[in-house]
Amino acid sequence: MEIGIERARTIIAAALAAGQAAGMKPLSVVVLDAGGHPVAFERADGASPGRFEIARGKAYGAVMLGMGGRAQAERAAQGPAFMAAVNGAFGGRVIPVPGGVLVRDANGRVLGAVGVTGDTSDNDAEAALAGIAAAGLHGEA
Amino acid sequence: MEIGIERARTIIAAALAAGQAAGMKPLSVVVLDAGGHPVAFERADGASPGRFEIARGKAYGAVMLGMGGRAQAERAAQGPAFMAAVNGAFGGRVIPVPGGVLVRDANGRVLGAVGVTGDTSDNDAEAALAGIAAAGLHGEA
Amino acid sequence: MEIGIERARTIIAAALAAGQAAGMKPLSVVVLDAGGHPVAFERADGASPGRFEIARGKAYGAVMLGMGGRAQAERAAQGPAFMAAVNGAFGGRVIPVPGGVLVRDANGRVLGAVGVTGDTSDNDAEAALAGIAAAGLHGEA
Amino acid sequence: MEIGIERARTIIAAALAAGQAAGMKPLSVVVLDAGGHPVAFERADGASPGRFEIARGKAYGAVMLGMGGRAQAERAAQGPAFMAAVNGAFGGRVIPVPGGVLVRDANGRVLGAVGVTGDTSDNDAEAALAGIAAAGLHGEA
Repeated sequence: MEIGIERARTIIAAALAAGQAAGMKPLSVVVLDAGGHPVAFERADGASPGRFEIARGKAYGAVMLGMGGRAQAERAAQGPAFMAAVNGAFGGRVIPVPGGVLVRDANGRVLGAVGVTGDTSDNDAEAALAGIAAAGLHGEA
Repeated sequence: MEIGIERARTIIAAALAAGQAAGMKPLSVVVLDAGGHPVAFERADGASPGRFEIARGKAYGAVMLGMGGRAQAERAAQGPAFMAAVNGAFGGRVIPVPGGVLVRDANGRVLGAVGVTGDTSDNDAEAALAGIAAAGLHGEA
Repeated sequence: MEIGIERARTIIAAALAAGQAAGMKPLSVVVLDAGGHPVAFERADGASPGRFEIARGKAYGAVMLGMGGRAQAERAAQGPAFMAAVNGAFGGRVIPVPGGVLVRDANGRVLGAVGVTGDTSDNDAEAALAGIAAAGLHGEA
Repeated sequence: MEIGIERARTIIAAALAAGQAAGMKPLSVVVLDAGGHPVAFERADGASPGRFEIARGKAYGAVMLGMGGRAQAERAAQGPAFMAAVNGAFGGRVIPVPGGVLVRDANGRVLGAVGVTGDTSDNDAEAALAGIAAAGLHGEA
């Protein structure tokens, strides 16, 4: 099973709706496939122009390292030099903070990741989890 | 007036629909704003994973150089070294071929660009133009 | 179905054996998954040290563009500027020549790609095809 | 004496087996030659897609700096700015943590390095040492 464009649309619509319902700032949401490549992206009106790179950086780290943004942030707190060095090996494309959420199917297999940016990192992660749940999938924040 | 997420969704949906109606291969469509930054993107199921980079490269050149992909391709044919050097100045992110289409409002002001990839370059441009027309805007291929 | 390490080992062993049986120069073989990421690699003794980058570049282009190295080389011959620009968008990691071979399952779905380097590009492609066939998969050169 | 493909295969098979025997998570193992270039690589099923870059980063630092990952981590702890700057000089490709292990022959000459990733850094280093010992060589973790 691939994540696919239909599920990606559901995730993005539900994540944006969750952010609006909770009064968050305008969010941007990317869905990456299991290889770390974009399937779909939307940036809400009022968000700053660089949001694609940030959303992708959060989700890209989740896919490539196989762990959500919270786990990455903990790893970075324990060993900042390690995570900085890992990021260098990926050309600086990893943003190891909450808001990058790994997406798994019912069997635990990784289908991709969602990256949300725009509000606090914790709120970003909540919006991502809401989007993933709406698609009937499991998020690992 | 900004291009905005609503128009971007209309453009993407209509471009994908035009491709399907014409029997094209699975398309990928990006909408960039007037600064060359992604507003929305979708990659149809069955498209190869690298399509975001190609779609963005086509649209990015259109915005940054202020001319559509056909005009860029003609410029590149007249002076390949010039266009290659220009591309170097943009970090290699410009793909100067049809399928990158500049988006203008009724007054001729540039709102952004659309990049389509997946079929022949000419078909990609047709799908982009169909999407832009559906949003009531003017495309310059 | 993922390509997986077992199939990757079979592909590499069979591709190296095919090269030896045909009297080719020492080959290097990489297997990438459907996201363009390495699963396995071997460089035969006597091959020059830079072979990993070349093997990966051939296979990476096949995955990311969804076409084998021969198709990429034809595209590059028709429009050299296009392929050079596409490569720029992928950070210069694409090597569009024979020896990069797309791997499909029985249903035509892309599982990844094989990159072979060391002999002539056409011989490299033959060795890759032999490896892929040994794993019961379909190669698109 | 070069490390060669036969020893590289022995190292990888034994490192993966050691990880499995100890109940570690799925490992990825790269063997680099004395110039820091890949000879062989394998990524166990279930490992995240970015493991090649991490394994290589660990082994690359060991070869290029002539010290194992533990020594590099100590150096980084003493002078983080120094190691970060050194890493910049190598294009960000060095990951200075345990799991990168220098490989020496009986005379102490460096033949290359092994990089392992997937479990804790210390476990990664243990698996690498087991692989190197299985090939009759000396590891410096």
